[in-house]
Amino acid sequence: MKAYQELNRDELLTLKSELENAYADAKGKGLKLDMSRGKPAASQLDMGMAIMDVLDSESDMKTENGVDVRNYGVLDGIPEAKRLMADIMGVKPENVIVCGNASLTIMYDTISRSMTHGVCGSTPWCKLDSVKFLCPAPGYDRHFAITEHFGIEMITVPMTPDGPDMDLVEKLVSTDTQIKGIWCVPKYSNPQGYTYSDETVKRFAALRPAAEDFRIFWDNAYAIHDLYEDKRDTLLDILSACEEAGNPDMVYEFCSTSKVSFAGAGIAAVASSAKNLDAMRKSMTIQTIGYDKINQLRHVRYYKNIEGIKAHMNKHAELLRPKFETVLSVLDRELTGLGIGEWTKPLGGYFISFDAMEGCAKAIVAKCKEAGMVLTNAGATFPYGKDPKDSNIRIAPSFPTPEEMALATDLFVLCVKLVSVEKLLERN
Amino acid sequence: MKAYQELNRDELLTLKSELENAYADAKGKGLKLDMSRGKPAASQLDMGMAIMDVLDSESDMKTENGVDVRNYGVLDGIPEAKRLMADIMGVKPENVIVCGNASLTIMYDTISRSMTHGVCGSTPWCKLDSVKFLCPAPGYDRHFAITEHFGIEMITVPMTPDGPDMDLVEKLVSTDTQIKGIWCVPKYSNPQGYTYSDETVKRFAALRPAAEDFRIFWDNAYAIHDLYEDKRDTLLDILSACEEAGNPDMVYEFCSTSKVSFAGAGIAAVASSAKNLDAMRKSMTIQTIGYDKINQLRHVRYYKNIEGIKAHMNKHAELLRPKFETVLSVLDRELTGLGIGEWTKPLGGYFISFDAMEGCAKAIVAKCKEAGMVLTNAGATFPYGKDPKDSNIRIAPSFPTPEEMALATDLFVLCVKLVSVEKLLERN
Repeated sequence: MKAYQELNRDELLTLKSELENAYADAKGKGLKLDMSRGKPAASQLDMGMAIMDVLDSESDMKTENGVDVRNYGVLDGIPEAKRLMADIMGVKPENVIVCGNASLTIMYDTISRSMTHGVCGSTPWCKLDSVKFLCPAPGYDRHFAITEHFGIEMITVPMTPDGPDMDLVEKLVSTDTQIKGIWCVPKYSNPQGYTYSDETVKRFAALRPAAEDFRIFWDNAYAIHDLYEDKRDTLLDILSACEEAGNPDMVYEFCSTSKVSFAGAGIAAVASSAKNLDAMRKSMTIQTIGYDKINQLRHVRYYKNIEGIKAHMNKHAELLRPKFETVLSVLDRELTGLGIGEWTKPLGGYFISFDAMEGCAKAIVAKCKEAGMVLTNAGATFPYGKDPKDSNIRIAPSFPTPEEMALATDLFVLCVKLVSVEKLLERN
Repeated sequence: MKAYQELNRDELLTLKSELENAYADAKGKGLKLDMSRGKPAASQLDMGMAIMDVLDSESDMKTENGVDVRNYGVLDGIPEAKRLMADIMGVKPENVIVCGNASLTIMYDTISRSMTHGVCGSTPWCKLDSVKFLCPAPGYDRHFAITEHFGIEMITVPMTPDGPDMDLVEKLVSTDTQIKGIWCVPKYSNPQGYTYSDETVKRFAALRPAAEDFRIFWDNAYAIHDLYEDKRDTLLDILSACEEAGNPDMVYEFCSTSKVSFAGAGIAAVASSAKNLDAMRKSMTIQTIGYDKINQLRHVRYYKNIEGIKAHMNKHAELLRPKFETVLSVLDRELTGLGIGEWTKPLGGYFISFDAMEGCAKAIVAKCKEAGMVLTNAGATFPYGKDPKDSNIRIAPSFPTPEEMALATDLFVLCVKLVSVEKLLERN
């Protein structure tokens, strides 16, 4: 195929007319597809329904150390749940607190606590003139929403296939005392599906922050969310790396089973140093008597251990793989060589990241919407919802069926082509 | 019986010697009893175990309006759970948000949000020089712990059998712009078991606060926790009362099923005006994608409606009543007329409040502990853990068996007598 940039004005006009016809046809089909969020499909949720049977009215409701999970008590998670969540993150159980149904809430609460009470004795952030966070972008919109909500200034750091631009991270973190944190999705990053290289993790662990209360927010959301059994990204354990580098208190790691068991009815956990966890427990014991221990026990009784979880995730992978492959094969077939888009090919996670020609993302998302397909808002993957190049689009293949995914991607590439032609005609 | 105050020194010394012998015997029994917290007994939890069966792997996992509870979505609670929680509080479902497993967490989050973001557009409390809360006392220690945690100054307001001293509340709230809230447990109050009179509720609703962001924190924890079917306290609906008084936004009401289904694995809710709920949703949507909807559905499928809940609570009452009555009958038998203690006789809730002679509470709790019985720390029912009279002790009869309760109360009255005699001898 000839790149669109090499077409002359007449060729572009002819192409535009063909694409407009195709788009009119597509609109006529009355599609109704939602690819906006990383939601599991119903069929994927069905796979785990047996978890609903492991606890019933006849069950032993005691933890391995004899605690009745139906009653008050146990602030920071039952021991067997700590072990399970520790194994997901590849850390020690004593470094884990198991909380409620959402790691997002743990992150929010951690920032909120830092605002009102500081970090391990530092000045509360709400008492400071300015607090800043580094935001590798494209990234996760809900991370950026938390920092924006608390009035924390967000500084965009470019992403690379090896992780954030570490030269820039090192420079900023080591010189600016107002920089208090950085958001990271280190494995199968949202939305690109990149996994931080060993080198990147080691450079993170070796940071020398100007601010004593600087923390890395390590959202290991996709720690075990591989698409292939034989091709898997691996991620170094940041907690050990930080400890080895003499920075034991620099990181909070988060994970959950939201995309293992049920979205919104899973269990979530945070891993960190004893010092950080103690500081968390101090406010946690004021905020709650304890999290839902029945649901913690339900998860452990069902999955048993990390091997059980991994076997379950292999089943998920069988369902998710064709969806990802459908998107990628359509993109490959339809857009390769056209010079109007680039995309990632992740080995796991929940997203594919698409970069359109500059200035085209919003128009593409709008065109898709007009024809019945909802994508994540263009810009959402950047701080303040503003993609400086108006280029990045997040594709979430998990919710639709493979057939719907094929239809959706056909429509998507059509919109990419049409908007790109229009953009090129503007310039000519 | 002769009041201890009327005994002469020799009589007191004789009595002391007898009591000391009895106490030595009691210590020898090696008791191990915990009456420190309002924990349900295992037998009470057993009563509700069938809730574990209502959702299994074959269940329809959709809400009445077709939402899959296993997936993301629905920020503020599924409709049928809103209805159930609304009926518990006697309010309209549209005034309800259903959250996670603990109303304490909703209260904490509400205060935390007010600190960082203010209340419906007011100045964030963390930006103010001073923020104060009124604390009717004796009251709930975990309420006081939240306000203390956020550095909010606590002002004690005396409790009466009709509720807080409303003359004082009206005076303080109408004149001091730094007073931003008041903690209330309006029905079967913790620890006295008092229920606010209609007059008190109406005076609350008619408050004219100096601070626009003043809110009543109405913790209706024991809304349906009656001990008797034929003798029940009733509480006016504060939301309607506030609306009628032209103060629709002045109150947040909280409740949970922690002492209906399972402590720590129930569901919790907040009721308030549309304006207040909208403000809550604004930060809630940053803090979470949604709460555990499976557990919400589980509760509705099991209890079905408020009638189902009430039938269940009648069963609880049958179990709790003998425990309360055991305590009260021992107190009546052993302490009436001695002038060394007064106690409440609640018709519901989880506690009995005991007022010892001034300066005796700490010593009594310590003596009980020495003989193997743990009570709530003396002072815990007051702000900063400081009971100015060192008099109030909270008795929590729910956890032990009636037999243990009898043993425990025997020990308790023994300790009350002994400490009182020692106190009187000090004075002579």
